[in-house]
Amino acid sequence: MSSMNPKREYAISPRRSEDFPEWYQQVIAAADLAENSEVRGCMIIKPWGYALWERIQKELDLRIKKTGHKNVYFPLFIPLEYLQKEAEHVEGFAKECAVVTHHRLEKGVDGKLHPASPLTEPLVIRPTSETIIGAAFSRWIQSYRDLPLLINQWANVVRWEMRPRLFLRTTEFLWQEGHTVHASPEEARQEALSIVNLYEEFMRGYLALPVIVGEKPESERFPGADNTYTLEAMVQDRKAVQVGTSHFLGQNFSKANNIRFLDKEGKMQFAWTSSWGVSTRLIGTLIMAHGDDNGLVLPPTVSPLQVVILPLVKKEEDKTKILDFAQRLAGEIEKIDFAGEKLRVEVDKREMGGGVKSWEWIKKGVPLRVEIGPQEISSRLLTVKRRDKELKEREQFTFEGFLERLPALLADIQKGIYARAENFLHDNSRFIDSKEEFYAFFSSQEQGKETTGGFAYTYWDGSRETEEKLKEDLKITIRCIPFKQDKEDKGGICPFSGNPSQQRVVFAKAY
Amino acid sequence: MSSMNPKREYAISPRRSEDFPEWYQQVIAAADLAENSEVRGCMIIKPWGYALWERIQKELDLRIKKTGHKNVYFPLFIPLEYLQKEAEHVEGFAKECAVVTHHRLEKGVDGKLHPASPLTEPLVIRPTSETIIGAAFSRWIQSYRDLPLLINQWANVVRWEMRPRLFLRTTEFLWQEGHTVHASPEEARQEALSIVNLYEEFMRGYLALPVIVGEKPESERFPGADNTYTLEAMVQDRKAVQVGTSHFLGQNFSKANNIRFLDKEGKMQFAWTSSWGVSTRLIGTLIMAHGDDNGLVLPPTVSPLQVVILPLVKKEEDKTKILDFAQRLAGEIEKIDFAGEKLRVEVDKREMGGGVKSWEWIKKGVPLRVEIGPQEISSRLLTVKRRDKELKEREQFTFEGFLERLPALLADIQKGIYARAENFLHDNSRFIDSKEEFYAFFSSQEQGKETTGGFAYTYWDGSRETEEKLKEDLKITIRCIPFKQDKEDKGGICPFSGNPSQQRVVFAKAY
Repeated sequence: MSSMNPKREYAISPRRSEDFPEWYQQVIAAADLAENSEVRGCMIIKPWGYALWERIQKELDLRIKKTGHKNVYFPLFIPLEYLQKEAEHVEGFAKECAVVTHHRLEKGVDGKLHPASPLTEPLVIRPTSETIIGAAFSRWIQSYRDLPLLINQWANVVRWEMRPRLFLRTTEFLWQEGHTVHASPEEARQEALSIVNLYEEFMRGYLALPVIVGEKPESERFPGADNTYTLEAMVQDRKAVQVGTSHFLGQNFSKANNIRFLDKEGKMQFAWTSSWGVSTRLIGTLIMAHGDDNGLVLPPTVSPLQVVILPLVKKEEDKTKILDFAQRLAGEIEKIDFAGEKLRVEVDKREMGGGVKSWEWIKKGVPLRVEIGPQEISSRLLTVKRRDKELKEREQFTFEGFLERLPALLADIQKGIYARAENFLHDNSRFIDSKEEFYAFFSSQEQGKETTGGFAYTYWDGSRETEEKLKEDLKITIRCIPFKQDKEDKGGICPFSGNPSQQRVVFAKAY
Repeated sequence: MSSMNPKREYAISPRRSEDFPEWYQQVIAAADLAENSEVRGCMIIKPWGYALWERIQKELDLRIKKTGHKNVYFPLFIPLEYLQKEAEHVEGFAKECAVVTHHRLEKGVDGKLHPASPLTEPLVIRPTSETIIGAAFSRWIQSYRDLPLLINQWANVVRWEMRPRLFLRTTEFLWQEGHTVHASPEEARQEALSIVNLYEEFMRGYLALPVIVGEKPESERFPGADNTYTLEAMVQDRKAVQVGTSHFLGQNFSKANNIRFLDKEGKMQFAWTSSWGVSTRLIGTLIMAHGDDNGLVLPPTVSPLQVVILPLVKKEEDKTKILDFAQRLAGEIEKIDFAGEKLRVEVDKREMGGGVKSWEWIKKGVPLRVEIGPQEISSRLLTVKRRDKELKEREQFTFEGFLERLPALLADIQKGIYARAENFLHDNSRFIDSKEEFYAFFSSQEQGKETTGGFAYTYWDGSRETEEKLKEDLKITIRCIPFKQDKEDKGGICPFSGNPSQQRVVFAKAY
């Protein structure tokens, strides 16, 4: 814990600038998003946090279905032997697999329960589902007519986590995983890339989250993939968060699982596959990217509520009038279209002080608060407060004027949140061509603490040694080889090895 | 497998009357709903099956939220000690718990992977979440102001299953589980009962599934409940399926988990809780209740598609005209409201024989099929086939007439499917007052096979011995003590013991 704020100017203590990781935990607590359970590394997602996940699910599911993918559900359990079929894959996941070894509990002589009925073959809880889905693909696919096969599932997965952090890194997490099979490598790669586009549009448009997209270097690839494409966001301590990945799996999993098809020429071929996913980690990224010293700040599209109405009843005789007015306003707001849906609004009727209630919604990040007291009713002017502005700022509207302006107001907030994140990303990205500047960028001190730097765009010669050395020295990794390259850039010199390099890659510290 | 049908009059072999359990498996295969995985007892839910689950989820979720419940997500893992807190509860579930004992895999001397890094305390995969949610409730609840607390989660659960059957009884299944906490026993019981009403309306209205609602006898209660309320459907082999349960848990779990609150008088009290759930078992019930010898028959509300349009292209030169017409029709259908949503329609453009395509949608149970060939375009009359009628039957409509009639047509199908199931339930329910008639009802032979009887409404004196004896003799159980009792009925004599009995209970064979 760091310094308290005696004047309580800010709802969250510590502030972001004081202790970012602790600020993050405190925002989650203040917005009542989630908490740790007694099962190490596993979180409890509370109503406001789960509502965020439902918003993400709904929108992303729509986009995934629109592009021809169908939802399915595969078993939680993977037979141990399945996992072993793809050598790199099992290598990558073996260290973090939860293993089921028994299917019954029995009372022991100590009066306590103990595992009983051992399984002949242990079962692994899915860390990802390529192997079990691959086994089904090999049964389902006979000929090119069965291709492409495009499926997706929403599921929980488990990867044993030694240093868990709410939403960003938990032993159990929720995600969607897409799995597709194709008749040619070009098509499978195109699928993996088109999903990166889908994710990027979703993140920029719906989560107001600018991302850098590109390819992972070999060292950071998904175990078993030929290529891993990634989306990297920058959060407010200037670290990177990998928010989504999409993999071209080549024929690795089709060979491991015997996914073959008769091609148009009548020849048996191994198919080409892809897989891709995003998870509840997106919620952690939203918090870290947009939150401020008063808590969560939500883009209107993803916010479970866009408007909250706070009736301020001071005298009992005003109560009915005020509540009726609030309800009528909510009724009108619910009829308004925004971003393809009806607006979501709530009247907070709880009998508590207006200040307490107001702070609650500030901390939860709701875009607009409308306070309604006797004055608002007599003047017929609404007082509206925006979460993205200074707390003291307010705007006044007539009832009709507000309803008319509402979609534009929310669109403006959405735009503003995106622009702020985009500017932050831009301001904290550097083209760096010398080793000295690079080391200074990632290791200089700021207020007695090591800075996190930002995103460094630097030439790299492709050597693993350089990666290892920089990881050891600066705790940084190559986040990606970005797709967007300056066309004028004809390559340069890797400042670490002195070797020629074709392109700049993005280095950063990461969650 | 039973007799083949040489004339292929029916799509499913065997027919229901020949071998109902095998018919059920064949319908699932023919409609491509699900299949067994190689993990014993765990199924793969395929796109059409999962789409059904999504329809169920969407509608039920809406109703659960409307009644003030909020969604959350709790961990998959339950510490072993949690499970032991409620004695009856652990007794009930110990025999079917999957246990995680290790969190890593390591290569052994045999070159194969083996479980490594044993856990200090094993983790149980949730068979249901009362205990882990109860632990959180005890942290969250301090005073009566925190009550009622109403939450729900959509999750996978695992109960090790010795005799699995797709959808009806699987080791892993998907469900929703509601968990609520209240300040009085009356309120908690009322919650459990109001959820039974919610389920009943959903099943009758949305799934076209008539159900008998009532209370379970003590022997069939949820482990740890004071009362278990149940909804029992009858499927076409006249067996019962328990399709949903709701439990008044008294103070059993609040005492086990220390869920206490300061009441209005400032006294510390243990709270009263309830829990309730429905699962993917609903899909199995839908199949068995409504399916026929040609496959699935879906009520329009729950069907992923309500109309399928089949372009019949015989000459290449007609193709564009026919496809355009089909697309235009689909566009108009999608604008129509039905049961609070827009209609769901698909144009099946695949280049296959019309017969093959048509049979596919018949087996999948889509309510309406519209065939469009050159004749339909020149006559401007649409040929419409209803899944709930004889296969040969068809109706003709003008383009505009069809669009206008569509909602009424679908409502009529929905009503018809419900009425058929309701009549079946009625026709196979008997008031039985003698032991001889009772035994004959459940054990007489029909075409060389034992009949399954139906629902017997019979007086029961409440003795466990009678239950045991009848279970042994006839493989039947008391499905429920129905809420709806004849008011004129002043009680009678239990035909098995000769003791007086206050009311009739429902006996049946069950899945």
